[in-house]
Amino acid sequence: MRVLAHVYTYRVELGRRSYPILIGAGLIARPDLFDQHLFGRDVLLVSNTTVAPLYAAAVVGALGSRRVVEAILPDGEHHKTLANVSRLIDVLVANRFGRDCTVLALGGGVVGDMAGFAAATYQRGIAYVQIPTTLLAQVDSAVGGKTGVNHPGGKNLIGAFHQPNAVLADVRTLATLPQRELRAGIAEVLKYGLICDAPFFDWLEAHIDGLLARDLEALTHVIRRSCEIKAQIVGRDEYEHGERAVLNLGHTFAHAIEAATGYDRWLHGEAVAAGLFMAATLSYECGLMPATDVERIKRLLVQAGLPIDAHQVSVAAALEHMKMDKKVQGGRIRLVVPRSIGECFISVDYPDAALQRTLAACFG
Amino acid sequence: MRVLAHVYTYRVELGRRSYPILIGAGLIARPDLFDQHLFGRDVLLVSNTTVAPLYAAAVVGALGSRRVVEAILPDGEHHKTLANVSRLIDVLVANRFGRDCTVLALGGGVVGDMAGFAAATYQRGIAYVQIPTTLLAQVDSAVGGKTGVNHPGGKNLIGAFHQPNAVLADVRTLATLPQRELRAGIAEVLKYGLICDAPFFDWLEAHIDGLLARDLEALTHVIRRSCEIKAQIVGRDEYEHGERAVLNLGHTFAHAIEAATGYDRWLHGEAVAAGLFMAATLSYECGLMPATDVERIKRLLVQAGLPIDAHQVSVAAALEHMKMDKKVQGGRIRLVVPRSIGECFISVDYPDAALQRTLAACFG
Repeated sequence: MRVLAHVYTYRVELGRRSYPILIGAGLIARPDLFDQHLFGRDVLLVSNTTVAPLYAAAVVGALGSRRVVEAILPDGEHHKTLANVSRLIDVLVANRFGRDCTVLALGGGVVGDMAGFAAATYQRGIAYVQIPTTLLAQVDSAVGGKTGVNHPGGKNLIGAFHQPNAVLADVRTLATLPQRELRAGIAEVLKYGLICDAPFFDWLEAHIDGLLARDLEALTHVIRRSCEIKAQIVGRDEYEHGERAVLNLGHTFAHAIEAATGYDRWLHGEAVAAGLFMAATLSYECGLMPATDVERIKRLLVQAGLPIDAHQVSVAAALEHMKMDKKVQGGRIRLVVPRSIGECFISVDYPDAALQRTLAACFG
Repeated sequence: MRVLAHVYTYRVELGRRSYPILIGAGLIARPDLFDQHLFGRDVLLVSNTTVAPLYAAAVVGALGSRRVVEAILPDGEHHKTLANVSRLIDVLVANRFGRDCTVLALGGGVVGDMAGFAAATYQRGIAYVQIPTTLLAQVDSAVGGKTGVNHPGGKNLIGAFHQPNAVLADVRTLATLPQRELRAGIAEVLKYGLICDAPFFDWLEAHIDGLLARDLEALTHVIRRSCEIKAQIVGRDEYEHGERAVLNLGHTFAHAIEAATGYDRWLHGEAVAAGLFMAATLSYECGLMPATDVERIKRLLVQAGLPIDAHQVSVAAALEHMKMDKKVQGGRIRLVVPRSIGECFISVDYPDAALQRTLAACFG
């Protein structure tokens, strides 16, 4: 008899759209979890050319007698397009999948965002389950129901809010994650500490080496704490009318970097890392964050092997793309500003000169 | 001083997504109504090549100093595609429209469904206002938040629920509506009588000639009553978990006709007319609806100049498309069955032989 590893469960509380996030080792191969959280006979398994060869067979095995159709997408952020979502929908139609089928997203944020958007729009919304296989997806993108694709004019400009039926974060899938992707995921983890949890930031400073060495206990801890924070914030503000926007800390800068470089040179998490440092710099330039905090953030990012600037992108290009970001309000760029490590707020009335100095310091 | 015509207002009650339906003469030229219901400076006016030359100038005039960008689509159901929605999003991006812009849909159901879907998915959801200019859109498609496009495999297979901020039904725009489109709109009006309002059906029998002659008072009455019924049903079941499905009376048959004929020969309302008669026939074949009621329905449809069968579509093709409809559940086609004029229910356990006899009688 096999002893099943412990499964940690957090619940995103959204009334009739509530769902569990399951975190543990070996989840993707457990038929009992699919039986509990995936209903219906027909499953569209969406994955990419990198992840499918590693984990699709285990998932299909655990799905038992269900009818499983696989849709394997090319890997990479620049493939996150409406054309590829349209292809997923073609597969659903071609296989005559009804409203009671389930889309299963097996992969990182790109796979999850596209599979989720296909589920959001096929027959005006069908069920989907997230099986994130990157650290970034496990701590961030698989949770919260943001789905969508990029437009040449900007990141995630087309999309919908559509909550999954469940999120299964299997920490064992991180074993095959390239080190660069692991680092990128850590950027989003640091974000949670910066936003609202100074003790977690302290913990990360103490355990960064263990994380980079893929210590399973350390990874499980950061996934649990990150999901807990995200589930609470999303539960209070599903549609980002207010508080949820703090989760975008660093992201307006990050999206500008990604868009300016055509989504194919920077990983999202790398751009977020630079964006976090830029947000800290802006706060310092506004006279808020003490230099010692900025220095701590910089040190931890550098220790994690993450970038803190984007000199290959011009200030003009960055500003152009930032103006196209979804967070623009009445022509003014809304930014999340960290006041200190563990506290942040949303601002449109930062001094322009402070933003200019920040951009000049961090862009080319 | 100009005396403003009376504006009838119904409210779709959906919590923070509640919105008004305004019905009256000359609404599209009234700046006061846009000031009350359309916020933000930037407006994407979506229309088609038929409607724009007739009414776009009046609307733009009433929008005052707002920045208005026009996106004019080709006319017709077979242009209701994801590719055209993608074009609308390109226009939004190209003009750097932010999350605080509004999409204004000026036209029939095709324009409204596409503009609404673009609004549903641009930046994960922006505001839109419906200005339906066909009877069908005024009594049905502009109300209730169903947005989307067709897929070669089926009608409205891609879409989202996204409620408008307001619906402005200007009865004067019906003056230019081709007679065929007027008849098509009447099909959806008859539907409301059949679903839940026998006295309204009686009224329609008595006033069908006035409607066909475009008596403004009669038209205003049917728009008001139809919107009232639809607003109540949508208010109780926004996402069609239950009761709202009755609004699909005749529509599974209708969508099969439309899909089988490539969306370019039948108007949606014409297909609905045939679908209503088929649903009545099915009910009769199930031993429910008395022959006298079926006869009344047939007589009124014929008086309205609407079709009651689709012999150019084969039974096999019809069945094939019906199985692809969104209403399929566990492999079984869910149908709305009228029990009598003014009462209907949703069924999956009608006798197969009754459906077969219905299809054999009404298809080729």
